[in-house]
Amino acid sequence: MNFTTQWNEQIQQRIDNKTKPIGALGLLESTASQLANLASLREQTFVTQLHVDKPHLLLFAGDHGIAEQGVSIAPSAVTQQMVANFLHGGAAINGFCRVNGIDLTVIDCGILAPVAVPSNLNIITSSMMGSRPDSDKAPIQMSYLEQRLGTTTADFSQHAAMTQEQLEEGLRLGAEIAQTRLSQGANLLMFGEMGIANTSSAAALLAALTERSVAECVGRGTGINEQQLERKQKLIGQAVERVKALYGDTLTPKQALQELGGFEIVQMVGAFLAASQQRIPVLVDGFIVSVAALVATRMDTNARDVMIFAHQSHEAGHKWVLDALDAHGLLDLQLRLGEGTGAALAYPLVKASAEFYNAMASFESAGVTV
Amino acid sequence: MNFTTQWNEQIQQRIDNKTKPIGALGLLESTASQLANLASLREQTFVTQLHVDKPHLLLFAGDHGIAEQGVSIAPSAVTQQMVANFLHGGAAINGFCRVNGIDLTVIDCGILAPVAVPSNLNIITSSMMGSRPDSDKAPIQMSYLEQRLGTTTADFSQHAAMTQEQLEEGLRLGAEIAQTRLSQGANLLMFGEMGIANTSSAAALLAALTERSVAECVGRGTGINEQQLERKQKLIGQAVERVKALYGDTLTPKQALQELGGFEIVQMVGAFLAASQQRIPVLVDGFIVSVAALVATRMDTNARDVMIFAHQSHEAGHKWVLDALDAHGLLDLQLRLGEGTGAALAYPLVKASAEFYNAMASFESAGVTV
Repeated sequence: MNFTTQWNEQIQQRIDNKTKPIGALGLLESTASQLANLASLREQTFVTQLHVDKPHLLLFAGDHGIAEQGVSIAPSAVTQQMVANFLHGGAAINGFCRVNGIDLTVIDCGILAPVAVPSNLNIITSSMMGSRPDSDKAPIQMSYLEQRLGTTTADFSQHAAMTQEQLEEGLRLGAEIAQTRLSQGANLLMFGEMGIANTSSAAALLAALTERSVAECVGRGTGINEQQLERKQKLIGQAVERVKALYGDTLTPKQALQELGGFEIVQMVGAFLAASQQRIPVLVDGFIVSVAALVATRMDTNARDVMIFAHQSHEAGHKWVLDALDAHGLLDLQLRLGEGTGAALAYPLVKASAEFYNAMASFESAGVTV
Repeated sequence: MNFTTQWNEQIQQRIDNKTKPIGALGLLESTASQLANLASLREQTFVTQLHVDKPHLLLFAGDHGIAEQGVSIAPSAVTQQMVANFLHGGAAINGFCRVNGIDLTVIDCGILAPVAVPSNLNIITSSMMGSRPDSDKAPIQMSYLEQRLGTTTADFSQHAAMTQEQLEEGLRLGAEIAQTRLSQGANLLMFGEMGIANTSSAAALLAALTERSVAECVGRGTGINEQQLERKQKLIGQAVERVKALYGDTLTPKQALQELGGFEIVQMVGAFLAASQQRIPVLVDGFIVSVAALVATRMDTNARDVMIFAHQSHEAGHKWVLDALDAHGLLDLQLRLGEGTGAALAYPLVKASAEFYNAMASFESAGVTV
């Protein structure tokens, strides 16, 4: 990705004058360049100080009608159990937000049934976010929101996953929560997801919106066996055929979302579009979030400019989404968990990119004579 | 690497019972396993709480006689200038230590001439390290030590790089500073290096100690051109031939170090051996540090157990060292800077590995029924 602005030359010069061989910080240099171009565009002037110190992760959860067809190792009830796990601080994403100082909002976008909120969770539905934690050990801010579009989507192998009203409401709600967190001070967003069977929805969207075959797009998710994989491929193939028969070459990203999407995916797309409008960077997690990123980019090509890709996951279709977005992940740790874990793990690299851009000495200032 | 102890089964069970699909945290799971096996071995009991929250980076600097032959884009004087840059907080490694909360000790192991220490640097030669910084923004602890073995090594394309006395003293001093920082509370070490022409020394050691050809081991360092690369290969080829003629198949790692090493490399080897003795994890940086890791492993095979490899750098020979050590780097960011930057950037991943092992809920505790 080579997102550049009129300030790009000054930005590149600043990076090249740092006390290091040209290009020696590899992907951190392209990340710093992207952050600096975005910041300069926002402020309409050459920016020398980047701020990515108030990260916020929006974790969107939703359930999928297609789960009843046995496309996952787990039943939809597990989505609810995992949302409860998030709210009790017990999941991987909680730990990674804790150690990296990332605020977290968990959003029920339409899971099987609402969860019982733990009594010690400070539920904040309008204004939130006090001062930043002073220490890695301090509790991060966590909040929980219900933005339910229904109980689950419809089984998209048979019918449209949702109505047009649900789609529009989802895009609006996703945009709204992103805007709210930005207006409350967040300067870097990350999105995560939870939803049994949502790799099926993401694979279907990817196949419908690109030239990739269903076989290329479908992977093992949390770990299904060969037989389940065949079944998953067959159902997704049916769905993509159904949608192609309906729309042919005129399929729009919104139609694809309504037909094949999930409540959490739709709200993520809305959130991407809101971040794009404000030119705020978004650190993109794995397969499902990347598919939402692809849909958002198809709706607004500028959306691509704000996206920094956290990692290459182990899920089969992820490399094809990254390919379609001309993107390269920062990390390659063989992750396949979702929840936003890849983004939370990559965040320190984004912080380091900003730090070297902001504070590292130039050859001149340091008296280094290379 | 599959370093295991008698507690490995309990450790693996703890990891597998976390609320995630088996293996879904990829390389973080193997990192957590290694940390837990080491900690259990240290404490001679099954350890459920890992501590890697007091990281310390030892940055070893030394100059190389072979630099006079023009094997680098920069003259030896730049080593001194960069050491001064470290002490003023202006280098990449300073920034990465700052944002990730890593204490830093810069050690002059024998650079061209000692640097003028800035008046505001708190030089501490014996006891140091107050309480940990409370915040990413708080200044990290930095100290500076002179452990000079000479002004530069001898040009190893012609002669032995150092005397046996210098070698032994270097191993002792490196071990001593590692032990000191551990006794002061550090629970994870990282090593970095600075020294114009030290990729030449590392490449020569790699070629002498493995079956790899000189051409495979030699890379462009900070960015030499084709002609310089040929010259570098020729000189290193000469050196390796010289050493082979002297020792043949009986070459020991110590002899290789004395003949082809650098003052910073020797002290790093000593530091690796000290960490290994105490079973304390070391996060290993790029090409040069990895070559020191290889030498240490040849001197004490247990040394391999404490090593976590931070990254795959862009320097040509690095993949062959990792290969010889049966190692895989956590990051692949196309870095080629040295200074310990790859280790400092990978540290949050090690912290995240410990965090999920320590705090993440089990299926049972979270009531998740997969």
